[in-house]
Amino acid sequence: MSGTNSGLFTTPAMAVIFSAQAHVRHMLTFEAALARAEARAGIIPAEAAAAIAGQCHVERFDVNALYQEAALAGTPVIPLVRMLTERLPENARQFVHSGATSQDAIDTAMVLQMRLGLEQLIDNLLTICERCAELAVQHRHNVMAGRTLLQQALPITFGLKAARWLALAARQVRMLRDCGNHSLCLQFGGAAGTLAALGTAGIRVGELLAEELSLPLPDLPWHAERDRVAAVAAAVGICAGSMAKLAGDIILLSQTEVAEITEAAVPGKGGSSAMVQKRNPVDAVSAIASSRLALAAVPLLFSSLTSEHERAAGGWQAEWVAVPDLFCHAAGAVAHVADAIRGLVVDSARMSANLELGGGLLMAESLTTALAARIGRLNARPLVQQICNHARLAGLSLKQAALTHPQIAGILAAAEIRNALDPAAYLGVSDILIDRALTAYHEIKGATERQ
Amino acid sequence: MSGTNSGLFTTPAMAVIFSAQAHVRHMLTFEAALARAEARAGIIPAEAAAAIAGQCHVERFDVNALYQEAALAGTPVIPLVRMLTERLPENARQFVHSGATSQDAIDTAMVLQMRLGLEQLIDNLLTICERCAELAVQHRHNVMAGRTLLQQALPITFGLKAARWLALAARQVRMLRDCGNHSLCLQFGGAAGTLAALGTAGIRVGELLAEELSLPLPDLPWHAERDRVAAVAAAVGICAGSMAKLAGDIILLSQTEVAEITEAAVPGKGGSSAMVQKRNPVDAVSAIASSRLALAAVPLLFSSLTSEHERAAGGWQAEWVAVPDLFCHAAGAVAHVADAIRGLVVDSARMSANLELGGGLLMAESLTTALAARIGRLNARPLVQQICNHARLAGLSLKQAALTHPQIAGILAAAEIRNALDPAAYLGVSDILIDRALTAYHEIKGATERQ
Amino acid sequence: MSGTNSGLFTTPAMAVIFSAQAHVRHMLTFEAALARAEARAGIIPAEAAAAIAGQCHVERFDVNALYQEAALAGTPVIPLVRMLTERLPENARQFVHSGATSQDAIDTAMVLQMRLGLEQLIDNLLTICERCAELAVQHRHNVMAGRTLLQQALPITFGLKAARWLALAARQVRMLRDCGNHSLCLQFGGAAGTLAALGTAGIRVGELLAEELSLPLPDLPWHAERDRVAAVAAAVGICAGSMAKLAGDIILLSQTEVAEITEAAVPGKGGSSAMVQKRNPVDAVSAIASSRLALAAVPLLFSSLTSEHERAAGGWQAEWVAVPDLFCHAAGAVAHVADAIRGLVVDSARMSANLELGGGLLMAESLTTALAARIGRLNARPLVQQICNHARLAGLSLKQAALTHPQIAGILAAAEIRNALDPAAYLGVSDILIDRALTAYHEIKGATERQ
Amino acid sequence: MSGTNSGLFTTPAMAVIFSAQAHVRHMLTFEAALARAEARAGIIPAEAAAAIAGQCHVERFDVNALYQEAALAGTPVIPLVRMLTERLPENARQFVHSGATSQDAIDTAMVLQMRLGLEQLIDNLLTICERCAELAVQHRHNVMAGRTLLQQALPITFGLKAARWLALAARQVRMLRDCGNHSLCLQFGGAAGTLAALGTAGIRVGELLAEELSLPLPDLPWHAERDRVAAVAAAVGICAGSMAKLAGDIILLSQTEVAEITEAAVPGKGGSSAMVQKRNPVDAVSAIASSRLALAAVPLLFSSLTSEHERAAGGWQAEWVAVPDLFCHAAGAVAHVADAIRGLVVDSARMSANLELGGGLLMAESLTTALAARIGRLNARPLVQQICNHARLAGLSLKQAALTHPQIAGILAAAEIRNALDPAAYLGVSDILIDRALTAYHEIKGATERQ
Repeated sequence: MSGTNSGLFTTPAMAVIFSAQAHVRHMLTFEAALARAEARAGIIPAEAAAAIAGQCHVERFDVNALYQEAALAGTPVIPLVRMLTERLPENARQFVHSGATSQDAIDTAMVLQMRLGLEQLIDNLLTICERCAELAVQHRHNVMAGRTLLQQALPITFGLKAARWLALAARQVRMLRDCGNHSLCLQFGGAAGTLAALGTAGIRVGELLAEELSLPLPDLPWHAERDRVAAVAAAVGICAGSMAKLAGDIILLSQTEVAEITEAAVPGKGGSSAMVQKRNPVDAVSAIASSRLALAAVPLLFSSLTSEHERAAGGWQAEWVAVPDLFCHAAGAVAHVADAIRGLVVDSARMSANLELGGGLLMAESLTTALAARIGRLNARPLVQQICNHARLAGLSLKQAALTHPQIAGILAAAEIRNALDPAAYLGVSDILIDRALTAYHEIKGATERQ
Repeated sequence: MSGTNSGLFTTPAMAVIFSAQAHVRHMLTFEAALARAEARAGIIPAEAAAAIAGQCHVERFDVNALYQEAALAGTPVIPLVRMLTERLPENARQFVHSGATSQDAIDTAMVLQMRLGLEQLIDNLLTICERCAELAVQHRHNVMAGRTLLQQALPITFGLKAARWLALAARQVRMLRDCGNHSLCLQFGGAAGTLAALGTAGIRVGELLAEELSLPLPDLPWHAERDRVAAVAAAVGICAGSMAKLAGDIILLSQTEVAEITEAAVPGKGGSSAMVQKRNPVDAVSAIASSRLALAAVPLLFSSLTSEHERAAGGWQAEWVAVPDLFCHAAGAVAHVADAIRGLVVDSARMSANLELGGGLLMAESLTTALAARIGRLNARPLVQQICNHARLAGLSLKQAALTHPQIAGILAAAEIRNALDPAAYLGVSDILIDRALTAYHEIKGATERQ
Repeated sequence: MSGTNSGLFTTPAMAVIFSAQAHVRHMLTFEAALARAEARAGIIPAEAAAAIAGQCHVERFDVNALYQEAALAGTPVIPLVRMLTERLPENARQFVHSGATSQDAIDTAMVLQMRLGLEQLIDNLLTICERCAELAVQHRHNVMAGRTLLQQALPITFGLKAARWLALAARQVRMLRDCGNHSLCLQFGGAAGTLAALGTAGIRVGELLAEELSLPLPDLPWHAERDRVAAVAAAVGICAGSMAKLAGDIILLSQTEVAEITEAAVPGKGGSSAMVQKRNPVDAVSAIASSRLALAAVPLLFSSLTSEHERAAGGWQAEWVAVPDLFCHAAGAVAHVADAIRGLVVDSARMSANLELGGGLLMAESLTTALAARIGRLNARPLVQQICNHARLAGLSLKQAALTHPQIAGILAAAEIRNALDPAAYLGVSDILIDRALTAYHEIKGATERQ
Repeated sequence: MSGTNSGLFTTPAMAVIFSAQAHVRHMLTFEAALARAEARAGIIPAEAAAAIAGQCHVERFDVNALYQEAALAGTPVIPLVRMLTERLPENARQFVHSGATSQDAIDTAMVLQMRLGLEQLIDNLLTICERCAELAVQHRHNVMAGRTLLQQALPITFGLKAARWLALAARQVRMLRDCGNHSLCLQFGGAAGTLAALGTAGIRVGELLAEELSLPLPDLPWHAERDRVAAVAAAVGICAGSMAKLAGDIILLSQTEVAEITEAAVPGKGGSSAMVQKRNPVDAVSAIASSRLALAAVPLLFSSLTSEHERAAGGWQAEWVAVPDLFCHAAGAVAHVADAIRGLVVDSARMSANLELGGGLLMAESLTTALAARIGRLNARPLVQQICNHARLAGLSLKQAALTHPQIAGILAAAEIRNALDPAAYLGVSDILIDRALTAYHEIKGATERQ
């Protein structure tokens, strides 16, 4: 993926985890662990296992040649086993890949890669959490417009928005961690899932192999039941999609007409080939692109649930490309959001000023609530409606219209009206929600670190 | 969905849970619970709450008129609140929907419907599990061809295949249950997620409301963070996709040329308008169609993760249709698989006979293993390859070719060859895997019943 | 779909075209036409054909009962043929559905429904075109900010934006029309695509049947080659997706902070259950939701391309639901955009005012161009960059910064600077492009009307 | 994509067309053509244009460094223009990329790549067509089972099946060709689609630029209206999906239990790491995987239709990866099908023998038709149903059951029964349909060659 447009929408670290080289490395890890497990189970000689494990280093393999051959064979394991066998002394050769099938090697390698991939995503999500937690605390009292259907609705604080971003990102940490714990496990079943070539030793070899790889042993081999892969795909996809929520908010808040936040200025970033003034929210935009690319892999991985009999004819093979694509682009989404948030410039004065746009009509609910306490909500609502309409037609602010409205003066004192129209006085439980998000995050962070 | 082609790919029970009527019923449940919670919190008079709750019965509402009005308003809550208010005595009217927003009512109603929907799916999955468990026990020793890439590969037992179906279905039970526990919770945030209209009482009302509805209270309102909905969508989608695995296997095993199983004959089912002889695997086919329809809703629900600011402009609204579609078609997939499996006719003689197709070449690995114990795998493999090729060219079975091969006689005795070519003697750990699947199922079943 | 949330995201007219009733009506149309064609070909008696055609009226059928039976049979044609046969005199009964298979009736009915559906979409698209054409002419000279990555970039006119909407909608008219012409044709192949039951008369009956239904006759039956259905799905999906472009622009321009356009105020539309001041762009939002729901059906219909052998086991059946969903929601998208655009209130003063936001920096490219003519672009670009940065830091507008910049005065006169910073003087070929869009539209409109 | 699992599911040729190198080459082609067009329009000096064009050779650029910089800049055009400028003499530098925006270069480069990509696909499709045409002729009279819902239904010929494959592939040729003609055109609009930086010369430069690149000039720039890209995506996706139809049929016919066809044996292809006997239909399997990977890109490209204002914030950027992925995997699907079909071994004896499976019940419709001519279809149908049931229960073939049935003897003579049960006598219009497919193919081929 490096050196192409794909590189814009992933991270170098994740690209390494899912590189061809890494794929071969992890298949070799499987082969080495298998040999050791079989030696421990007394199925193959210890020296053979040692010889095999001693050759299982990706640096000794011509990865490009391997994949060239794989394109004909239809699987990378056939050339891998051949190449590995050729490197061995005569007496160890027959013990390579013993009792296993290519799917065992490919699936387990993929599981090992996914384990690393989830760790990467979690690390980067925690960076986002940390920064969002700071923003939540820092902007706890900075009032801004809450917007529904992209219309100003009610005041909120930027701290609350950041807290919601935090809670969302923190939940992804937990979801990815739980998903890894539940869904990543050894695949080992032999050619048709019975481990027949190992006779009665199959169970014992499986246990030792799981131990060698520090992977949980599943109830059954899962060669043709891909619900675990789909579950990982879903979790990573939801993580990627959640990043688009943050990125989308950033882009919307960065609009020239809103201008409440700006991505940090970095030389060489966010400019335009035509317009010198541009400060494009380039990380957020790349996060959106990355997120969409990641999400495109999810339905494909769900469709692989339909695996025919004991090994799928097409669906499984598509996973070999879709899983790397999913993780790489999800990493791009997380990393770009992390970058966007890292240096985020927040203009709280502009947030405040924007509350006046639309004549401050977003305080209508607050005014209704204040009036309702005196005249009931059924009377208050049409009255405020009338004031809003008047304000709109006369080009007044809600405050002007309310303070001069003949009827309202008999109900609320001017100070009460002013108070009802003060955004900072109408924030409900924002503060408590921020605390909750911080607490939840610290729990998740703690649990993740303990693991 | 009733009375159309959609009805072929859902169940009446799930269609009821996600009917327009049910949607209105659950929004009214929300409004009634809200009134009671606010009365308990001392925010509104107890009599008003009683009056409101007393009118919150869907039978008193013209659901069609409500949705007609909703199409203009853009949300069903505006006509709902209007209609509910009109039914109330003067002094209760102002207390309807107090402090809440339409999203609170719609999202919480959807959560209540999803909770019922998950229960339905779990019930029907347990039916599948039960039948698969029976099949696993009953056919524990019935040998059949294991097939990879749709080619005969190695012998397995039908019991093992059923055990894998069982394990898959049982995992879905656990996944749906866990997902319900983690992801279904109250939505209550008011117009912009601050509960501002309730002043400081917001937190307390939220707690009581959650109690009234027996729903967990989330850390924060989730109006614009839809990861929980996406997680439910993923779990239900994976369940639906898993059903396509079972249905696909059934269709493949039902092929005229394979004929190892047949769906139960039921009058009026599976015939053809043109061909009288047809016994189509109609439930499995409908399960596939249902599964695909369910899966189509998942990417849409993932795309709603990108919710703008404090309420989405389009993505959230699409959920109102996509969530019912997802559950209804997932129910169709589960129910059709349950029906297909319920009366499944298994032809174990044919399973046995099919092992001879392809000249019994699927025993090649077994023969290799037997020879390898004497001459090493590196020598055994080309020898068996040679025998296989000879068998193919000469039109012999593998047994004939092996027994008459000059070289092999010096290595294995005829009885040993016969044993190596006996499918029933090459089943590896099939039996143990069946037991594991049964144990895992009973644990999941127990845990589900305890809940 | 009526009386549920689905009704919010379709049109009554399209819901009628794809209702269960309509499906049965069109299958009966097929059966009547088949009987007439077979009579004309001398295969069945003319009186039998007349008797059959005489009963082919949907009003005489219990559609609900039919679909109930269909759920068991796995196809609506089996009960349809049974019910139709029962209504006939003894001597006509055997000639019902003669030589055809259920897929012939279902596919051809679907084609007839799709033909009507395309006409509906085209009609509504032309409404959008007409209104966009008016907007393009009316706002030909109304300058507004062009925005890339949601940042103000360069001035454009609202007329040009409307012209681009027009061109997009007009291209959809042409695409849908062409697609209908290419892809909608008779399906008639009998049980396995050979028309065997009709002996040598199959070709002749097919020709007459196509004539009866005014449908083109394809090269071959297409029971298991669904590329034509996929092509229609693609065209309708692209149409629906294009609507989301228009709706998205409307929502963005309606933001409180942008406020350049507003959907027409209609009583009962666009309010909020909580906030009286809200004027939500409810049609645009519903268009987005409708569009996403329509697009969800497209991948499913593409996956049906993989049809097994002579009739698919699941993929085809899923079309029965996905095609109606696609058309209904696409209609919702088109209609909601038409409604949003119909009464669109355009605030050209605000458009003008918004150009000043961001200090009018969107004129930077224009200034660069003006300077470049004197000092070359390589010198002009960094100079303007410097002025922009100064303007940003000093809180000046670009005009203020440029007019007071020491270096620039030596290059451009003040009037030249003012001219370079006048948005209305930097519109390039906007005007010509508007004319082109109008011309293209009139051609497409003419061609459509001639058809 | 080379050297990874992706390489298994594409072709080297297409990977080259969509390589990073090729992307840069085509962007340089754009820049060179732009300079020449501007020189011809008298906007920039001819020597500058010559200097620019003289440096527009990808070999002179460090593509890896370019993409590294692009990851920060958010677009490859900024480093490209910088690097190109640096290579130029002082006096030419300011004329690089004049009046254009990065989207003009990226989109037009993508169009040029797509044009080459479509040609590639068409070439390979024609190879498939050619081979299918041969198979259709060669196996015109080879009878095999037609199968609906994977059950034997009626006899067809393998020639007819090949003719349907041919017709499907040939339609894709036409669709891709038409789509290329309609949808591939120049993108040239400048920073916001007005070509403002070129003043009044914009239209003329656009015309000359289109001429330079041999690309049609569209009505309007299409920077934010992506229906053309979506249309290409749809056509390529339908092509890829159609390949899965062919591949699926091949896999099903290759099953051990069906064994009617086999992919050609090629050393190193289709083996198993565990089972020596395996002859996996490896090309068909890889075609399925490729097809699914291609189709995954389509919904993403449809979602880019929602482009915000004058340039999308995320959707457009995702195209940079999704379009190459789509074409590369579609090429994989077409090439693998071509390879699978190229050496296809057809076992017509087995086709014939398989007709006897299921007791030859697939002739039931034929027997019904024969009886119907004497006793009417309403009497014939239950009679044949009864005979079929008897055959099933008694383990007889349909022929045995029919010839010994007491009632049937009074209606049809034994020879008539035998004839009615002869698959070769019940092929309907198969032969004519084969001819039609051949004719249609030759027309499409001719039209394509003339182009």
